[in-house]
Amino acid sequence: MKPLSVIGIAGGTCSGKTLVAKRIVEKVGEENVLICNQDNYYRDLGDFSPAERANWNFDHPNAFDHQLLVENMTSLSKGTPADEPIYSFIDHTRTGKFRHLLPKPIMIIEGILVLGDPDLRKLMDIKIFVDEESDIRLARRLRRDEVERGRTSESVLDQYLDTVRPMHQKYVTPTKEFADIIIPRGGENLNAISIFANHLRMILENRADVEVGQ
Amino acid sequence: MKPLSVIGIAGGTCSGKTLVAKRIVEKVGEENVLICNQDNYYRDLGDFSPAERANWNFDHPNAFDHQLLVENMTSLSKGTPADEPIYSFIDHTRTGKFRHLLPKPIMIIEGILVLGDPDLRKLMDIKIFVDEESDIRLARRLRRDEVERGRTSESVLDQYLDTVRPMHQKYVTPTKEFADIIIPRGGENLNAISIFANHLRMILENRADVEVGQ
Repeated sequence: MKPLSVIGIAGGTCSGKTLVAKRIVEKVGEENVLICNQDNYYRDLGDFSPAERANWNFDHPNAFDHQLLVENMTSLSKGTPADEPIYSFIDHTRTGKFRHLLPKPIMIIEGILVLGDPDLRKLMDIKIFVDEESDIRLARRLRRDEVERGRTSESVLDQYLDTVRPMHQKYVTPTKEFADIIIPRGGENLNAISIFANHLRMILENRADVEVGQ
Repeated sequence: MKPLSVIGIAGGTCSGKTLVAKRIVEKVGEENVLICNQDNYYRDLGDFSPAERANWNFDHPNAFDHQLLVENMTSLSKGTPADEPIYSFIDHTRTGKFRHLLPKPIMIIEGILVLGDPDLRKLMDIKIFVDEESDIRLARRLRRDEVERGRTSESVLDQYLDTVRPMHQKYVTPTKEFADIIIPRGGENLNAISIFANHLRMILENRADVEVGQ
């Protein structure tokens, strides 16, 4: 079954993309929404030393396996299942395992750079940019990486200032121009999420306004 | 009848606010949407000379009759009819005539500064900021004022640089932070308008998601 609508959700690190996607799923029903996360398509760094991995630029477009990502997203958007690699964010390697993804009526492609890729943009009916103040994003990232990933705040800040921030300005911010809608305050913005969920419910009922998806 | 939803639409001069509102009406039906334009609440400049009127700052919050605007918007949002002054944009005076407005299920309050007014914000269920590049807005304004209002490009540019632009930066841009949704490319952004129209159709059917309007 070909999805009724393919949604792209981009935005900077810790802008709230994932929370927006999660809340949409809560509202529209898990059976109706497939979330595809660009993060699962990070390249395998198995050939690199731990030091090299630690200093890797994970925020450049080349950090992702563009070919497999586009291949899988194209298949799913045509209604064909795809196997998504399961990535280890500890070792920065592919585990060799896959998640078998089946198409659903609504498909979300989520990630910092998904609006910057012309091949992915072609698949999307609606493009969303989740916007959040840069200091809020940094504060969240520090919390996440320190608490959930056991890193020191110094290493998080080094990475942030060396690669995350410059790559954000160079590659993420400019993709805002491709967005149909900009959602400020990310996952906390319940009004925006409700509006979008109402739209998706019309899509699921095949009653949506015609411009969308053309 | 109390409106089911009150929408605020702000944005800079010639950002496409009016076109967004108009396209929403086209999609949702004139019988369902009342548009209230802040421009009709400009103060009467009858006591000022033509030269003073020509140099007036129409982009400062004080240019509007805040009291009457809030009074009328409050009435309509409670389901009570209101009389909107008919303003002459040629003489910058009130004509003494009024338009009798009846509440409708959806109410739009539109204008450059409507999100900057805490009294108006309190009435709104959803706040939209229509965003457009500043050069595009200036180009449109030159066209509009030269063609429709018979002004010279020099006088339009003088006004733009003297008051429109600085007031925009001081009073309009900061209100973006109150927006639930930012719509780039204004009235040309058919995807955003469709999403919002689908949401409004759910509102009209009393089937909309609960967060909205709370």
